[in-house]
Amino acid sequence: MATKNMHYSCNQLDRFCMDAFQKFGFTKEEARIISDVLLLSDLYGIESHGMQRLVRYHKGIEKGWIDVHAKPEVVFETPVSAVIDAHKGMGQIVSYKAMNIAIQKAKASGMAIVTVRNSNHYGIAGYYAKMACDQGLVGMAMTNSEAIMVPTNARMSMIGSNPIALAVPAEPYPFFFDASTTVVTRGKLEIYNKLQKPLPEGWALDKDGKPSTDAKEVLSNIVAKNGGGIMPVGGNTETLGSHKGYGFGMMCELFCSIFSQGTTSSHVNVGSVSGTCHGFMAIDPKVFGDPQAIKEHFSSYLQELRDAPKADGKDRIYTHGEKEIEAYAFRIKNGIDVNINTIVEMSDMAKFLGMDAESYLGKVDVLGIESSYQ
Amino acid sequence: MATKNMHYSCNQLDRFCMDAFQKFGFTKEEARIISDVLLLSDLYGIESHGMQRLVRYHKGIEKGWIDVHAKPEVVFETPVSAVIDAHKGMGQIVSYKAMNIAIQKAKASGMAIVTVRNSNHYGIAGYYAKMACDQGLVGMAMTNSEAIMVPTNARMSMIGSNPIALAVPAEPYPFFFDASTTVVTRGKLEIYNKLQKPLPEGWALDKDGKPSTDAKEVLSNIVAKNGGGIMPVGGNTETLGSHKGYGFGMMCELFCSIFSQGTTSSHVNVGSVSGTCHGFMAIDPKVFGDPQAIKEHFSSYLQELRDAPKADGKDRIYTHGEKEIEAYAFRIKNGIDVNINTIVEMSDMAKFLGMDAESYLGKVDVLGIESSYQ
Repeated sequence: MATKNMHYSCNQLDRFCMDAFQKFGFTKEEARIISDVLLLSDLYGIESHGMQRLVRYHKGIEKGWIDVHAKPEVVFETPVSAVIDAHKGMGQIVSYKAMNIAIQKAKASGMAIVTVRNSNHYGIAGYYAKMACDQGLVGMAMTNSEAIMVPTNARMSMIGSNPIALAVPAEPYPFFFDASTTVVTRGKLEIYNKLQKPLPEGWALDKDGKPSTDAKEVLSNIVAKNGGGIMPVGGNTETLGSHKGYGFGMMCELFCSIFSQGTTSSHVNVGSVSGTCHGFMAIDPKVFGDPQAIKEHFSSYLQELRDAPKADGKDRIYTHGEKEIEAYAFRIKNGIDVNINTIVEMSDMAKFLGMDAESYLGKVDVLGIESSYQ
Repeated sequence: MATKNMHYSCNQLDRFCMDAFQKFGFTKEEARIISDVLLLSDLYGIESHGMQRLVRYHKGIEKGWIDVHAKPEVVFETPVSAVIDAHKGMGQIVSYKAMNIAIQKAKASGMAIVTVRNSNHYGIAGYYAKMACDQGLVGMAMTNSEAIMVPTNARMSMIGSNPIALAVPAEPYPFFFDASTTVVTRGKLEIYNKLQKPLPEGWALDKDGKPSTDAKEVLSNIVAKNGGGIMPVGGNTETLGSHKGYGFGMMCELFCSIFSQGTTSSHVNVGSVSGTCHGFMAIDPKVFGDPQAIKEHFSSYLQELRDAPKADGKDRIYTHGEKEIEAYAFRIKNGIDVNINTIVEMSDMAKFLGMDAESYLGKVDVLGIESSYQ
């Protein structure tokens, strides 16, 4: 992977996404949602889920996993819940709708869970948790995914990266937690593979379920379903809590594929259907008393954590979301660096869609750059 | 720690607990609840939270943390929520009431969260999650505790062991997940200390926030609030996901001390008040469709996990709760082994309460056994 970057303003990347997704056949409103989710990821510094993912969405459309004309349908609901069938639609579109339903129901009933089946990759879970938080509610978002987590004592991936995101109102900025229940995501392995670096110990397993630091081999085994994959947070032995990460992954699965009676991670992205499932929850803190008092109580605990004595050699304790808030402020002001490989992919995608790549991305010097497009 | 055990039937231990807690001043109904929680822990093979804990409850009463005459009070409620002040009562008593309220509200409204402040240690979180599951609901239970988790980059414990328990109806037995969000609990360190064995790498930190395998030193630093403690699940570096365990610990804290506006882990068990807080949630799966179909869907995923190919050298993949179900069946039939140290503590406690120790516990050979009682 080339370490060279190109530099863009947020507006430039937004214009690219808006036009590209409309060219794929999405409406302007739908393109707005998808672009917002991808851009927030890049603005938060989570590059794996921003522009870098564009090529995968295109592949999803080509494979027939993503139906650009699908409209999500509420197939079951109560005052505190809904089940939505995405009908193979884009993950961001159904998820935006699902979280808005959860928010409305939570405002009316105090709390709500919305579960989604038959969807696709939806970007960062945190985007949807943040939607609730922006309205003064506690937001949670989860998703299953293609199996990459190897349960304790297994040798095959059977559970997805299964992130759990939680956003909670606080001052001076919200608590924002968004973490896969695997020790790392597949994207991290892809970066090590591109850099031809050995993986850190404690991340991955080979096809026999033994620890491996060979990114290339692990990735190709995952794709070929040969065995192996990524460890749950807590590693691959109960001594370090492997069963805990595995358990949190199952908690995510419950809210996504189980409540919705959708496709479990073990069958997501297999064959001609993705089947990805999501789960969303919103809680109005007013059901526990004065929301302002609850927010102040939480904010002072967060401040107490930040002010706590630091470990030798460390000068800062982060509470969850601080890094994202700082990355966001910096990138809104200074623009976003995008890896040249991703830009080459975007450029190829523009050509495919009949867009004038240079007018969006400027002159791209592709010399020595290998496009992973197509 | 002596490795010698004494052997009892479940009924013998139950009789001891029932009589001892009534001697302390609890009503028969209250003693029934407390005894049930402690016994289930021993029956599930979670010895750290069973008879072994009796001495701590006595100390809690002596210190004034536990008021045996306290009656929990619902101080705020809606159709989907309640906030309960335990008024320094025993954790098990308020928690039994709290989960029953959550269950009733979930049956009426679809789901409910009950949050508790000003309580005490409540035993295993899983007991309360199981209460909901036994009635066909999804149950969750959490609690904060005295700070033992050192946040990423910190050197002081600021968060409790903060377990999250989840119980979900399934066949042939429920999914039952009950895990601290620290890599291990303090009880594990105490066992290594008693055995004078070095801790495994990746568990604990010394007073400067550096990794330590010295159980004795880590424990005395925790007690003296000198710094150090236990790592979150994921260890003490972001490379292995330290911030994830830290984040799940915060999720637990939200449902316990934040929603209830109670005492955060950083101040629990400090001075003359415990202040422990709990959180409970019940969800009726009927809000997502046919509960039987959801249960069958989940059960087949669990079976698929158990049937998955095993890692080299492993012959079984467990789904969460299997070990507990098997331990329960074995111990109900064959009785329970209790460590001789615990029996000596129970014997001393019996004498303190004016009970005839031998008639409950048989003849205890204390030769060479050091009682940690008082």
